[in-house]
Amino acid sequence: MANGLFIVFEGGEGSGKSTQAELLRQRLTSARHKVIVVREPGTTSLGLHLREYLKSKRPLALKSELLLFIAARAQLISEQIRPSLERGVNVISDRFTGSTVAYQGYGRGIKRDVVDYLNEFVTDELQPDATFFLDIGPDEGLHRVGSPQMRMALSPEDDADPGRLDIEGHRRFEDQPIAFHNRVRRGYLELSESCPNWHRLDANATQDQLADTIWDEVARMLNATGPEHPKDAALLQQ
Amino acid sequence: MANGLFIVFEGGEGSGKSTQAELLRQRLTSARHKVIVVREPGTTSLGLHLREYLKSKRPLALKSELLLFIAARAQLISEQIRPSLERGVNVISDRFTGSTVAYQGYGRGIKRDVVDYLNEFVTDELQPDATFFLDIGPDEGLHRVGSPQMRMALSPEDDADPGRLDIEGHRRFEDQPIAFHNRVRRGYLELSESCPNWHRLDANATQDQLADTIWDEVARMLNATGPEHPKDAALLQQ
Repeated sequence: MANGLFIVFEGGEGSGKSTQAELLRQRLTSARHKVIVVREPGTTSLGLHLREYLKSKRPLALKSELLLFIAARAQLISEQIRPSLERGVNVISDRFTGSTVAYQGYGRGIKRDVVDYLNEFVTDELQPDATFFLDIGPDEGLHRVGSPQMRMALSPEDDADPGRLDIEGHRRFEDQPIAFHNRVRRGYLELSESCPNWHRLDANATQDQLADTIWDEVARMLNATGPEHPKDAALLQQ
Repeated sequence: MANGLFIVFEGGEGSGKSTQAELLRQRLTSARHKVIVVREPGTTSLGLHLREYLKSKRPLALKSELLLFIAARAQLISEQIRPSLERGVNVISDRFTGSTVAYQGYGRGIKRDVVDYLNEFVTDELQPDATFFLDIGPDEGLHRVGSPQMRMALSPEDDADPGRLDIEGHRRFEDQPIAFHNRVRRGYLELSESCPNWHRLDANATQDQLADTIWDEVARMLNATGPEHPKDAALLQQ
């Protein structure tokens, strides 16, 4: 059986990644494609355990922060992403290697060669078929996440996971100064210009506009393979 | 103020590292030297949190296992080892970089260049003044830890931390096949032949014999610096 598509959403705080990941999941499901959504660092047992620490205010060196995200990614790839893709299931990931470049590299100032080395160590040549970068100015993005009402509205699926909203928890990145978020955005912009299969989208567009643009691209990828192509095997066998 | 001494104990299961670390702590304290004992992965809040996962039977990819130990070491160095050494406090560590080479490198089969890269990233030129490798045949060492009575006798200070004995917990390394422990030992032997400041000690000697040998070396290091040397500043100021 052939591999599923591996689709990643990246972006700063309040960019609407999680919402678009969910909307894409719904469209794929409606079109009878198998799909799972994973999220960094959580959705594995290890990721959830590490997330609990990351959300706390306990001491955490910057190198350790970096290594926890990388450890969570290694587990996510090994336990969920690779096995799903190999079974022909499409995988949508809310954040991936680009987040480490943007947040720990550009944001925290850890050298790019270290971040690249660690990303390559854990991905071991696994590359997304498409990365959608939802680009938003930090002022606007932080305004969105700063409002509990807005955050509820942005991520309805998070009702089942109140901790996700961080309203009471430690906001490790959201509460960083604006200069941090400007560096993160610069990291994303440079990635979107230099990496294959990255698509920069203006996150000020409406949710429906963004979802249509994303779906056009994903449908193109699915169709490009043609009905006889193995990429569609999962669909045909359903 | 000058740096304290940084002394590491390494060895396989049942080698008596923890006991010797404690005996050295007692001798240093009796001689009115300031000293702390740290232990990998625990003794920081992060290390204890990660240790909880490592002791569980939840899924853990080998790359993630490696990265958790490295993350714990980064935190231990940043939070406890460096600040103590810089205040003139001697630091005894129960395991350090050699454990990653022996267990994750030789034992698990992760490439040496990856292990070395990660060790260098987190130690950032911090080197132990002495590493005591307590060498024991895996058969004898595993016999020691296989017996709860023996384990209680080996580590009296562990009474305060029953989880340390792993009697009910997951024995991540102890329960590996003997071939694993033979590889770990081979890793330690090669390190002790190639690394500066490593001392291989026959762990079949009595506890008192080992403690005397270790103390001779540590006292030599303290005396070599002479009473005017900064290494003794902490003592003189007490």
